[in-house]
Amino acid sequence: MKYRFASRMEKTPRSFIREILKVTEDPKIISFAGGLPNPALFPVEGLIEAARDVLTEDATSALQYSTTEGYLPLREFIAKRYLKRTGLSVSPEHILITNGSQQCLDLIGKVLIDPGDPVAIERPGYLGAIQAFSLYEPQFVEVPLLEDGPDTHVLSQVLDTYSPTLFYGVTNFQNPTGISYSGEKRREVARVLSEYDTLFIEDDAYGELRFRGDDLPLVSNYLPGQGVITGSFSKIIAPGMRMGWITAPPEVFAQVVTAKQASDLHSNYLTQRIIYQFLANNDIDQHIRHIREVYRYQRDIMVRIIEETFPPGITITRPDGGMFLWVSFPPGFSTMDLFHTAIKENVAFVPGNPFYTDGSGSNTMRLNYSNSDEEQIVEGITRLSKAIRRTLKD
Amino acid sequence: MKYRFASRMEKTPRSFIREILKVTEDPKIISFAGGLPNPALFPVEGLIEAARDVLTEDATSALQYSTTEGYLPLREFIAKRYLKRTGLSVSPEHILITNGSQQCLDLIGKVLIDPGDPVAIERPGYLGAIQAFSLYEPQFVEVPLLEDGPDTHVLSQVLDTYSPTLFYGVTNFQNPTGISYSGEKRREVARVLSEYDTLFIEDDAYGELRFRGDDLPLVSNYLPGQGVITGSFSKIIAPGMRMGWITAPPEVFAQVVTAKQASDLHSNYLTQRIIYQFLANNDIDQHIRHIREVYRYQRDIMVRIIEETFPPGITITRPDGGMFLWVSFPPGFSTMDLFHTAIKENVAFVPGNPFYTDGSGSNTMRLNYSNSDEEQIVEGITRLSKAIRRTLKD
Repeated sequence: MKYRFASRMEKTPRSFIREILKVTEDPKIISFAGGLPNPALFPVEGLIEAARDVLTEDATSALQYSTTEGYLPLREFIAKRYLKRTGLSVSPEHILITNGSQQCLDLIGKVLIDPGDPVAIERPGYLGAIQAFSLYEPQFVEVPLLEDGPDTHVLSQVLDTYSPTLFYGVTNFQNPTGISYSGEKRREVARVLSEYDTLFIEDDAYGELRFRGDDLPLVSNYLPGQGVITGSFSKIIAPGMRMGWITAPPEVFAQVVTAKQASDLHSNYLTQRIIYQFLANNDIDQHIRHIREVYRYQRDIMVRIIEETFPPGITITRPDGGMFLWVSFPPGFSTMDLFHTAIKENVAFVPGNPFYTDGSGSNTMRLNYSNSDEEQIVEGITRLSKAIRRTLKD
Repeated sequence: MKYRFASRMEKTPRSFIREILKVTEDPKIISFAGGLPNPALFPVEGLIEAARDVLTEDATSALQYSTTEGYLPLREFIAKRYLKRTGLSVSPEHILITNGSQQCLDLIGKVLIDPGDPVAIERPGYLGAIQAFSLYEPQFVEVPLLEDGPDTHVLSQVLDTYSPTLFYGVTNFQNPTGISYSGEKRREVARVLSEYDTLFIEDDAYGELRFRGDDLPLVSNYLPGQGVITGSFSKIIAPGMRMGWITAPPEVFAQVVTAKQASDLHSNYLTQRIIYQFLANNDIDQHIRHIREVYRYQRDIMVRIIEETFPPGITITRPDGGMFLWVSFPPGFSTMDLFHTAIKENVAFVPGNPFYTDGSGSNTMRLNYSNSDEEQIVEGITRLSKAIRRTLKD
């Protein structure tokens, strides 16, 4: 028979990163390509205990259908955490538990994006958001990311010209660049946005992973009624449990709940209960401090070996947290060419081009430091330097 | 600020059933409204053991990000089970693990439905499918359900007139009616569909719950390359774990994988591992036989008390499996009026109207028997009979 697909599918790329990950499954390859947390940091003992507690004490409830919004004590925990870390006051009533924060992006697309709607996004931007939103067929409009956050001059022009439904940004330790909005830039972005009917989608998946400087308020702190925040337990507990959340102004939240109901009724309730039990049994601050220390150490080594071995003319970001840093080569250099050479040297990364919706960025790349130990980072970056020199000669 | 929502949200009803469930939270109320499995049948001990096994033996893998398609041994188990129960040969490569079978419907909508596309659905039809598909703004076309499955004469006309992208049906123990397609009707539906470029979406969430007669082949057995099947562990293990699956012809499957990646990367991997471990450690056939016995017993009591106490002129279905039976009153009777009277008698059900996309069905209702014990069924149906007699007098 002849299959007829919805037109939105033509506009949705398969994740380039997930395709790359298949290439890098070879154990000989040192991979800086994925976005994986360090599995040595998964709190295995605490999760075993939490799972046993939930299943021995309240199994029939934990295994039954539940509410779309999610387990209230877990939502209360998240609300308290926002207040403590960022000073933001969020009602637990307006927090919904999702299948990782990726699902938040799908729900946002469902609720907010009609085909052809202008949607503003950082340049470069998070690939998962580009993918998720693409299903709803928006017109992407890019706002360049500077060292301290988006170019607010361009942002103003974009808001004026296109009146986008939403502006999507990762304010802490962005994927792919590792860039964070400065304190001043946060207030400025909020001030600019507050004059328009454009929601700010603040992806804060990495916010807990700050290893330099102090926690800052979110942009949403300065944007009452206009900020939608997405969060995740993937980076502080474990990604295989697929637990994230979204909070939004009441009117938007009600639509998100309807979209979630239609999409999958509710998130895995047993896992919600296990995560809450784990948080109740353990000192999560201590656990997060440990993650931060390890990632800072890994980041420092990667930066140092890059500085020691990369040829001149290449710039890198020096993130204050998160899992990634970003490399920019001189114009004309192709990181896709480099990728093929690097694979022969048994080292992998993600070429930057897929993070741009306009087809540019081919002289950039993303490196992940969270999922490699010291030895792998030293050896992998050394191999990568060789591959760069070889590519520069060709 | 002024919020701007996507036009699809106007067409998506909040689930009426989930709204009703809030009314019925009062412990005085005996509820036949929900679609909940009997929690006494959840295999708690087996799940405790399986969770401990997975987390002690392979935690760092089970807690990490994983592939979009899902855990291969679990997909192999599902493939073997289809072969055993229905004689259908499915490749594990073409099975994807989802967040319950509800997510399958969202993925199908994403992949197949453009706004305005005709979509054929049983009348009455599963509310969750109406909700999920509504987000993709189809034009619903109904095919009446007879005692032995859909009216194939109307189905032919619908296929001829509208050339719908898909026909969605629940072939075993349908929600809401409890009706199953007869063996002959399965072949006939397949024969009719095989002449058109219309995919058959075969929702088989209840197929394992047959308590009378023999398992039958699926309609998809007779429709190579044209059947998409959705399944679920919710009814045989536990719904709070949100684990289902979808299988589709290769070309369709590839699009479903892309849609799943964009929607939430992959399903909860820890839960996939726990469910597989549970299946490996235990005799699932024995467990399913026990569920079937309990549900047959509960169904038999409900049918008997209805026969003894309901006034004449009311017809019911007598399902061979599943969790629901369907009640039809004479034309003009309003089950919505009955609902309000019944709540005063402390008994609840779901009025049938939301299961029709054309606004009709207001003289029908759905009763769930899986989540009430003998005493509750006897007392609840007796109260319901009183409410019916009172409503008839008004």
